[in-house]
Parts: sequence; C-alpha cells; structure tokens
Amino acid sequence: MDRVLPFRFAEEEGVFWLLDQRRLPQEEVYVPVRTAREMAQAIRDMVVRGAPAIGVSAAFGMVLAHLAGEDLEEADRRLRASRPTAVNLFHALDRMRPFWGDLAGSLLEARRIWREVEETEAAISRHGAQILWGQVLTHCNTGPLATGGYGTALGAIVEAYRLGRVRHVWVDETRPYLQGARLTAYELQKAGVPATLITDSMAGWLMARGAVDAVVVGVDRMALNGDFANKVGTYALAVLAHHHGIPFYAALPLSSVDPRLASGEGIPIEERSPEEVVAFRGVRIAPEGFPAYHPAFDVTPHRYLTGIITEKGVLYPPFAEGLRRALGLD
Amino acid sequence: MDRVLPFRFAEEEGVFWLLDQRRLPQEEVYVPVRTAREMAQAIRDMVVRGAPAIGVSAAFGMVLAHLAGEDLEEADRRLRASRPTAVNLFHALDRMRPFWGDLAGSLLEARRIWREVEETEAAISRHGAQILWGQVLTHCNTGPLATGGYGTALGAIVEAYRLGRVRHVWVDETRPYLQGARLTAYELQKAGVPATLITDSMAGWLMARGAVDAVVVGVDRMALNGDFANKVGTYALAVLAHHHGIPFYAALPLSSVDPRLASGEGIPIEERSPEEVVAFRGVRIAPEGFPAYHPAFDVTPHRYLTGIITEKGVLYPPFAEGLRRALGLD
Repeated sequence: MDRVLPFRFAEEEGVFWLLDQRRLPQEEVYVPVRTAREMAQAIRDMVVRGAPAIGVSAAFGMVLAHLAGEDLEEADRRLRASRPTAVNLFHALDRMRPFWGDLAGSLLEARRIWREVEETEAAISRHGAQILWGQVLTHCNTGPLATGGYGTALGAIVEAYRLGRVRHVWVDETRPYLQGARLTAYELQKAGVPATLITDSMAGWLMARGAVDAVVVGVDRMALNGDFANKVGTYALAVLAHHHGIPFYAALPLSSVDPRLASGEGIPIEERSPEEVVAFRGVRIAPEGFPAYHPAFDVTPHRYLTGIITEKGVLYPPFAEGLRRALGLD
Repeated sequence: MDRVLPFRFAEEEGVFWLLDQRRLPQEEVYVPVRTAREMAQAIRDMVVRGAPAIGVSAAFGMVLAHLAGEDLEEADRRLRASRPTAVNLFHALDRMRPFWGDLAGSLLEARRIWREVEETEAAISRHGAQILWGQVLTHCNTGPLATGGYGTALGAIVEAYRLGRVRHVWVDETRPYLQGARLTAYELQKAGVPATLITDSMAGWLMARGAVDAVVVGVDRMALNGDFANKVGTYALAVLAHHHGIPFYAALPLSSVDPRLASGEGIPIEERSPEEVVAFRGVRIAPEGFPAYHPAFDVTPHRYLTGIITEKGVLYPPFAEGLRRALGLD
C-alpha cells in the first residue's frame, strides 16, 4: 500500500514542503514553506490540515523560525493563532519552547514529535483494527495526510481491512470542505481498500438499511470526560448511530486530550468563512448575497461513544476514569 | 413577494416553456418543450423537478403529444418512465387518459390540474402557517419552483413568516443536487424571508444548540400509514429531530398519498447516477474511478412525524385513520 505523507523536510534547503491538500485529488503539488509566518498562513489556509499534521507542521514552523531568523515569540504567537480548535498545535509548540535559540535541539525535537506521531498511530491502528469489522462508515479525513503518520480512525480502518475484518468503507464526503471525497477517498484508493463515497445526508439511511456495522471518526480535541470536538457532522453521526444501535468510536492519540477541559462545553468552536459553504472551487452554489453559516466543528457528548481508540488500547465507559488513567493523571 | 413559476404554456405557439432549474440561481433560462418525448427527457434531466411540478408538466406533455401528433400510448409510457418515485406523475397521467384524442378537453384538464395545485397549496400554506413559529429548518426545495403553485413545506414557511410567526429559516443545501442552496435559497431571497444556508451535516448540531424550533419537509410519495419517501437526508433529519424533541412535519397535497401502499416498504427508491455525487456542478470532487452511491430518496417511518400538513388541515397520530378520512376512503 502507498502511504502519501502531507510534508517532507528538506534540511539542506531549509524548506518544509507541504503537499497542497486543497488541490487534491486532481493535482499533487508541493508548496515550499520557509518561515513560521508562511507556515501559519499555510495552516490557516488549509494547505495542511488534520490535528496531528498541524502539530508536526507547527513544530517545524519553529525550526524554520530559527533558520529564517524570525522573532521566536512572534513566530510562536502566529502559529498558535492559525487554527484555534486543534490542541496538538499547542502541545507541539509547548514542546518546542525549551529549544528556543537552539537550532539543532529544535530540529531534533520537531523530528521527535513527528516520529512519535508515527509510533502512536501504529499503535492506534493496531488496537482499533481489533474491534472494527464488516462495513464501517467514516467522516472527514483521518489518514496519513491528516497526521503525517499512519492515520487515526483511517489507520485503524486500513489495518482492519488488512486483517480481513473490515470489507468495505462508506466515505462521507464531508461538506463543506469535502475532506472525505477529496482526501479519504484518495487515501483509500491508494491503499486498495474497497470503499464508496456518499453524501453526508445518506449516512442515516444506510444505517437504517443495516449497511453500517460501525462508525469511526477522528478527534480534534477531547475533554477529560470523553466529550470531543471534531469536524461538523460528527455529532449528527453519533446521534444516528446511537439511535440505530450501531457502535460509534473515536480514534485519537492521547495528546489530543486537553487535560484542562472537564467537559466539552469549554471547547472553542472555530467558525470559518461562509464562503466555503456558498462556493466550491470558485463555483457558486447559492444566490449572490445569500448568508451561510459555517461552524467547522461540533461537539459530541461522550454518552454517544461506544469506545475510544487510543495508542494505549480501547477505552470503554466510564471514560473519565479510563482517560485519567491512560494520561497518568491519577 | 415574487413567486417564480417553473413553467408557462404558450398556447398559440404550442410550446411549454420550462425554467431550466439546473442553471439556477446563476441564470434564468427558459427551455422550449414541444413534444411529450422532449417533456419526458426534461423531467428525467431535472430541467423541471418537484413532484407537483412534474405532475403538471406531464399533463401538459400529453397536451403537446396531441399538438405534435405523437402516438399517445407511447407518449404516456415515456412520461410515466421519466421519474419513478413521484406519484403525482401517475395521478396526472391517469387524469389525462379520458381526454386522449380530444385536444380541447386535454388542454382544459391540464389547466385544471395546474389550478388545483395552486388552490391545494394555498390551503396547505394556510394550515401549515398556524403551527410553525420561530426558527424552522427545511430540506430540498418545496417552493413554487417545485410545484407550479405556492409550494408545500416552503409555502407554509413563507406564509408563517408573513404572519409574523416564523422569523428565520435554516436551509439545508441538500446534497448532491443542491436544491436547497440553489432553489430554496433563491425562492426565500425573492420572498424576502430571512434565511441562512447550512450544509446538511450541520442540522443536528443546530438542533443540539436549540436553534431549531421545527423541521418541515415535503413529500414525494406517502403510504396510507404516513410513511413517506422524500429527498435523501429527510430520514436522518427526522431521527435527529425526534432525538432532540423538535417537532417534525411533512407537508403535502393529499394527491401525494398512494392509496395502494399500506406502508413505506413498498415505495420504490430511485437510484440516480453516481456522477451527481462525485462531481459538484461539473467540478470533480473525488479521485477518478472512485465509486459513489446515489439513492435520490429515503423513506421516513411515520413514527417520526409530529404532524402531516395537508390541504384539509394538519393531521396528527394515528395517521392511518386521519389519512383514510382525509382521502375519503372510510
């Protein structure tokens, strides 16, 4: 299977190359990033997206800040402001701080962050593959493109397919940004996993018809009780799965748990431009001047979760206990 | 308020002009239809869509068959095969049959079918307006463009806005064909009703946040127990509304009830081309060769319905009794 990575670091050139995910699947174009300022802009513009991939990119953004001689305080601030929902961004930047002023140290730490993503996701995929089977449905993109590793929910799905457990994947197109249609479909095609694209509105009907054996999604940020923010549409899938008695799983590295949050109520929801709803790639779909609303994420209460797939194994209710133990907070 | 009609008949020219709904809201282009064969193709291609508007169009298709000297048996057969889910199509063609060979009579009957759509929908709008208030959410397009009259669900919404009861409308974009974004948004803008476009995946989250006071949708075909087929995504909305304790209404003319169907199990579901899923107004969104699934409709069991808005008033459970009485079957 081919794994397409979202970036590569060319140390000799001092360039972090980002695969421009806005242009997939039609074109595979790499964009050079040479400064933290450019990295912050690329993250904001979604050249790179997905919480873990954003974390790795931000870490390398600080390496670039050293190489380019940027003000480190400002570089850090810019990167933190680029995407407010992804907690990995803050984690990664916190880890880079002790290496400020130390180029070699900062490069080593950025590489370590990346390698840990890979190791963590290999473990997530292994654990998740044990509980998925039959036909699974997923939302948004949680594969290597979203992480720089093996993927979270999609890593588990691909591994479960390799083990002969999962036989088919339903891919939510994931409006408005179409991460499912553009990126997950692309990754599953490269991985050779049988899959079918649907609109987000079809998921409930497939569940009613018995065509979905499990739903598995990624996580942008999880609170200590298991409530979690993820791509808008996740909440509706969770309610629909619950209603139909279908297992619903979230897959994430434990680094996506925010230990400062007791519940999902405190998770900030990024509102993105309504333009992303009323136009797609320059094609306008609504009348001129018609308003649109674009919350990029929603929050799913933990009561809809069957299990949480982490690098330390699958957690079951009560999640608050399991998460505290997994995080070593007890 | 402006009401945009989906067609007009130019008797002197023998042309039924269809507003090409595939090109809205960007362009208002009228397409001339001169034969039943052309009408069947226009219905299949969704130049005109919406169950009541299809019924009126099919009736005028038989008028055109007379004018053009087509074989009436074949004209009838072609029109019946154009869209399998809409029951109004069959009703209208059944009504035209006694006038086969009688041009004047067939024209009168087609006009009568159209006028009845208008009268019926004025009544639906009046009854529906009494029970809607606050913020309502709707799916697909059920306005004048879909019917040739005042609209069903959208007629009730617009009337409730005029009465000062509804203050804001959430418009589901309604993938894959975007009837909400393209047509409902266009109609609400013309009607001056405050409204906001969302992706279908956001509806559940808005419900969770208390931003939806009622959901009201149209119906393609209803069984005698209240189960009904409508645009794919309706079923998921019904389950979500049910879960959140939000009233969920279907609005329809009683002619959309199929008295041959005891329940929704017998309703045929039209599968349309996967191309409509993988391409977004001509822009491809998925990798080449990636499969897609496109059921155009789903079936919502009557247990999720709060009420059924008809021209004879709003029916409440038990629906089987109310529908039989309203249809005069008892």
